[in-house]
Amino acid sequence: MSETEFEIIRRYFMRQSLQREDVIAGIGDDAAVLQVPAGQELVVCMDTLVAGVHFPEGTPAAAIGHKSLAVNLSDLAAMGATPAWATLSLTLPETNSTWIDAFSHAFCALADRYGVQLVGGDTTRGPLSVTVQAHGFVAAGTALRREGAKPGDRIYVTGTLGDAGLALQLRERAPGELRKKLDYPEPRIEAGRALAGLASAAIDISDGLLADLGHLLEWGRSGASVQVDALPRSAAFLATLRRPGSHKQSSWYELPLSAGDDYELCFTVPEVLCPRVEQQLSALSCGCTRIGIIEEAAGIRCYLEDGTRYQPVATGYRHFDGANT
Amino acid sequence: MSETEFEIIRRYFMRQSLQREDVIAGIGDDAAVLQVPAGQELVVCMDTLVAGVHFPEGTPAAAIGHKSLAVNLSDLAAMGATPAWATLSLTLPETNSTWIDAFSHAFCALADRYGVQLVGGDTTRGPLSVTVQAHGFVAAGTALRREGAKPGDRIYVTGTLGDAGLALQLRERAPGELRKKLDYPEPRIEAGRALAGLASAAIDISDGLLADLGHLLEWGRSGASVQVDALPRSAAFLATLRRPGSHKQSSWYELPLSAGDDYELCFTVPEVLCPRVEQQLSALSCGCTRIGIIEEAAGIRCYLEDGTRYQPVATGYRHFDGANT
Repeated sequence: MSETEFEIIRRYFMRQSLQREDVIAGIGDDAAVLQVPAGQELVVCMDTLVAGVHFPEGTPAAAIGHKSLAVNLSDLAAMGATPAWATLSLTLPETNSTWIDAFSHAFCALADRYGVQLVGGDTTRGPLSVTVQAHGFVAAGTALRREGAKPGDRIYVTGTLGDAGLALQLRERAPGELRKKLDYPEPRIEAGRALAGLASAAIDISDGLLADLGHLLEWGRSGASVQVDALPRSAAFLATLRRPGSHKQSSWYELPLSAGDDYELCFTVPEVLCPRVEQQLSALSCGCTRIGIIEEAAGIRCYLEDGTRYQPVATGYRHFDGANT
Repeated sequence: MSETEFEIIRRYFMRQSLQREDVIAGIGDDAAVLQVPAGQELVVCMDTLVAGVHFPEGTPAAAIGHKSLAVNLSDLAAMGATPAWATLSLTLPETNSTWIDAFSHAFCALADRYGVQLVGGDTTRGPLSVTVQAHGFVAAGTALRREGAKPGDRIYVTGTLGDAGLALQLRERAPGELRKKLDYPEPRIEAGRALAGLASAAIDISDGLLADLGHLLEWGRSGASVQVDALPRSAAFLATLRRPGSHKQSSWYELPLSAGDDYELCFTVPEVLCPRVEQQLSALSCGCTRIGIIEEAAGIRCYLEDGTRYQPVATGYRHFDGANT
């Protein structure tokens, strides 16, 4: 307990190699001074991760460092924005050099990878909690919004769904690939940028597909049909569920529909633009999968391959109703 | 425990009357979309308040709502910036409508007063903690920095010092005026704006005068002499210390020198500009007081009126050394 706030900031967070030219003043002053390029709008989002709520106690410091920034970059991706800067508020029960070192290394590694400079923040003492604000740019008028989905638009998701949810269920017994999806989610920045100006609406899947698609529909005052057999699932997810024993058949659909923490993008595209979007996203490692269609009637209807209705059990993570916490 | 994150945001934080034209998308999307005016630089700062660390348990919700924004606006003031937007991450142990109502009313009242629109954030469940990021503008190149103080520059502070520290010591026994300074600090936005382009350096006093002046000196690689008898003290502060009993004489100097939470500005001015600064700030309710001079020799030297040295006992709040927490 000998390090002050200033020493912590200096030692662990001022070592980032990246120095952007649009940062006039970064860490260390009362506030950061930044330049937004002409013709660009500023996109900002803030997310908090609390120990025992957003990640299990005992999650590696590196995973928390990575994820605290990744979930925010995921929000920028859902807006079609290019990341630029981050601020970090780190609340720690005690000064633990090993922990902070691992946390800051993972945070800065992800930041460097996406050209994000840490420009300010706060360190305080208290129960473990991390708040990050990410800042990015979009060309004026091109931000991907939640509103905008129209009946007839096709619904897509990037990557695969359910991996993080299955890892959370299995904890230590989860295969490395699933665990990685939970602890080190990859923000879909390139996909979001490719979608700007093409997708009619977009959101990132943090609370589960049904919950987050529900938000899109709420804004667009519309409904949707979703083909549950079309939901993209990873090879590791399928192999794990095929292991004899613990899992009911419903997990094949339930986790991809309702589990949070996947941080893939869910977006809608007017039919005429679908070929172009599919071509552009096929060039990215995450790819995209068409899973349904926007309809006028409110609500989300799920269908199996044979056309029969499927009734989901849960509808997503709710922060204050105690259902999934 | 029945309200979801989204309902909380909607009910309590979307009622703000202020709607700025530079907010393209505010609360409710994955991220906010904002326009920074041409020729202006963006100034951002983030501060976290943790229950039991930054405010005593039992502090009224309204005070926490006010203070969580005020301490950030104070950082903007120290940069000479004009506030524009805020984001808020609110971590609560449980959903308590009365608490959130009082919190959000006070938060929004202060925001409205300074033209600040709440544009996004997060609500999560966990130990009580509030993180706010404030965003403002300065004309390009005019931000007040911590570096820049030169030997010969005069040192000033706004308002009065020690009030919040004394209120914290006395708790319930503190007079209302002192208590108000602790719970409802007034960010010195007008003073900061008046100083932009005039002051050579500025910082806000959150950790105590000696600690925060120390930061200015560190950046400027200089030292200072401070006249402790010149430190501005409020009538309520002096009257309280004159009450028979509990306080040693040293509090007359110690609290103004070392207690945190005053959120006044400390700034330096080249001698030639002092009359202009004094005139401009005399028009504001906080005013300003000259307390010392920047010198080449490192360190802060305190003097009494008769020219003898005064050796301060404590040097300010340190977040992780347990001294003042």
